[in-house]
Amino acid sequence: MADSKNPLSEVRERIDSIDRQIQELIAERAERAREVARVKGEGLSAIDYYRPEREAHVLRMVVDRNNGPLSDTEMVRLFREIMSSCLAQEDPLKIGFLGPEGTFSEQAVRKHFGHAAYALPLGSIEEVFQEVAAGHADFGVVPVENSGQGMIQVTLDMFLTSEATICGEVELRVHQCLHSLSGNLADVKHVYAHAQSLQQCKTWLRLNLPGVECTAVSSNAEAARMARADEQAAAIAGESAGKIYGLKTVAKAIEDRADNTTRFLVIGRSLFPPSGNDRTSLLVTVNDKPGALYDVLSPFAKHGVSLNRIESRPAHTGKWQYAFFIDVSGHIDEGNLKEAVAEIRPSVASLRVLGSYPVALP
Amino acid sequence: MADSKNPLSEVRERIDSIDRQIQELIAERAERAREVARVKGEGLSAIDYYRPEREAHVLRMVVDRNNGPLSDTEMVRLFREIMSSCLAQEDPLKIGFLGPEGTFSEQAVRKHFGHAAYALPLGSIEEVFQEVAAGHADFGVVPVENSGQGMIQVTLDMFLTSEATICGEVELRVHQCLHSLSGNLADVKHVYAHAQSLQQCKTWLRLNLPGVECTAVSSNAEAARMARADEQAAAIAGESAGKIYGLKTVAKAIEDRADNTTRFLVIGRSLFPPSGNDRTSLLVTVNDKPGALYDVLSPFAKHGVSLNRIESRPAHTGKWQYAFFIDVSGHIDEGNLKEAVAEIRPSVASLRVLGSYPVALP
Repeated sequence: MADSKNPLSEVRERIDSIDRQIQELIAERAERAREVARVKGEGLSAIDYYRPEREAHVLRMVVDRNNGPLSDTEMVRLFREIMSSCLAQEDPLKIGFLGPEGTFSEQAVRKHFGHAAYALPLGSIEEVFQEVAAGHADFGVVPVENSGQGMIQVTLDMFLTSEATICGEVELRVHQCLHSLSGNLADVKHVYAHAQSLQQCKTWLRLNLPGVECTAVSSNAEAARMARADEQAAAIAGESAGKIYGLKTVAKAIEDRADNTTRFLVIGRSLFPPSGNDRTSLLVTVNDKPGALYDVLSPFAKHGVSLNRIESRPAHTGKWQYAFFIDVSGHIDEGNLKEAVAEIRPSVASLRVLGSYPVALP
Repeated sequence: MADSKNPLSEVRERIDSIDRQIQELIAERAERAREVARVKGEGLSAIDYYRPEREAHVLRMVVDRNNGPLSDTEMVRLFREIMSSCLAQEDPLKIGFLGPEGTFSEQAVRKHFGHAAYALPLGSIEEVFQEVAAGHADFGVVPVENSGQGMIQVTLDMFLTSEATICGEVELRVHQCLHSLSGNLADVKHVYAHAQSLQQCKTWLRLNLPGVECTAVSSNAEAARMARADEQAAAIAGESAGKIYGLKTVAKAIEDRADNTTRFLVIGRSLFPPSGNDRTSLLVTVNDKPGALYDVLSPFAKHGVSLNRIESRPAHTGKWQYAFFIDVSGHIDEGNLKEAVAEIRPSVASLRVLGSYPVALP
């Protein structure tokens, strides 16, 4: 094996040399990150020089440069971790999220802040807002939208009564698949899944497995375990769960909405400069009179600003007032959006910029 | 800010250039990992060319080379993730562990295999062994020892009846601290903690807080939350939990045993070659006669093999037989250990090499 002509040992020597170079570069990167801290002032915590717009820019360059063989997702993940380690040389970022540990929300925290940040599991979405407001957490991560189920109202409503800003967004994509031991649709007599997954796939189930009994269980992992024990059963779960539990995939992407994504917001206490590809969230309250919504929306069209989302909620501030959560493309400091917002202000009861933040990476 | 004399933009330009080089090197590393797969045969799963001894060797070189500013732990973590991504280009490793997600066991899985592996939460330690034996999981991670509480018997006993091998060990170190709002010992009238943490710190509590009421709660995180709501309360929790929950540290490292470490074993189905710094676990059964243990142990001393651990259990194989779990330094293929074991075999009822595996990294 030590023979220099052995192709395996040649490859391994080359990998050792690559690792040496990677390590030197990471060490230098960490050193330079300390320089950034020194330029900004000695003895600061990570929160004092964490720049989400800079991180987003760095990660977008990583995606642009990527030619494989690793996927964009894996390469971004590695750079996220390198930045996370470099940043955590000072007092690490503290991130509040809807606990307990091991949930989808924690995955979103790790996807956005890496594993060198402190993740702080909290009991409710309200508590995440409170902990950020009180400064116990530097940022919070809260779910705001499931593409199958719509906006999460409790999160939106928190913005009506709190001063929280939006500093980022995170998307986790989940494709639901149907898995069974045989992998044949004809064998399936029962379907197990978490209630939410059954809900997300109900059209597919009705069309492809009419009359088949569907049972809600505590998790999709539990469903996969049950399917493994019963040849007539199938489980709805993510793509990897099938592989993990040794099941064959009967059908892929069976969710009713093709893009089954959960979207999270990163909340904080300040606003950040443009990253080059941003989204802006606005909270607008209007008095209930004819044409009110039209007055809000027409300036966006006029100034060529794309509208990404709009959601109305009864405002807590007064009777017969409505609040609109509006997501648009661009940063509030950039020309056309700035102009559109200036035009809207006079015609509405209130307008608050919740945040301008980098568009989520894959 | 765009001024080239701005020290911040100069540092950032340098970081961008470093990132470009790191990315090229990671991509080449991933390419070389595919070459290793090709040398070994097309179309293999990660399990077919995963080499724990090679990974341990690579990580040890990382530690040897490390001159900061990142800690050894952080640098090893980053390389673990890079290797994890490179390996997961083929069908990723599937790792069974004692669930649910978010536990200490999952931390051990991630510390050892990185985040590109599939982690498979299971219901019991027995199930981890079964899933590995059945090939549904490539490896399993099971707790085997808590330095305050001793060996975990259910894990040891599984080796008496299963064919599992040991392919690695993982250590997680936890220092228990006492945290409260004021940080003053004199203010503490109640202590909250998980039952196990109370147990681990009982000497310190008896000496430093005699007569103070101690209450077991569901987790140390819960304890920290309760301490935050009550000025007379303190919580036992890890060092980071105090920071996370905004508490001041009253006392550090209050556990009775200074080295409060949980040790996990990585179990699998095969044995691996030496990594250069290995440990070997042996399962020896002896008939209950005078001098039996002496006959087992003296060859190790004679051949200069260090004994790391020994634990006796009643063997399931026969009445009046005892099983000894013995951990020694070195690899079973290496000279002095090989000779010692050859000398022991004739005098014992049975001797099984559970595994020779790399000593845990920090």
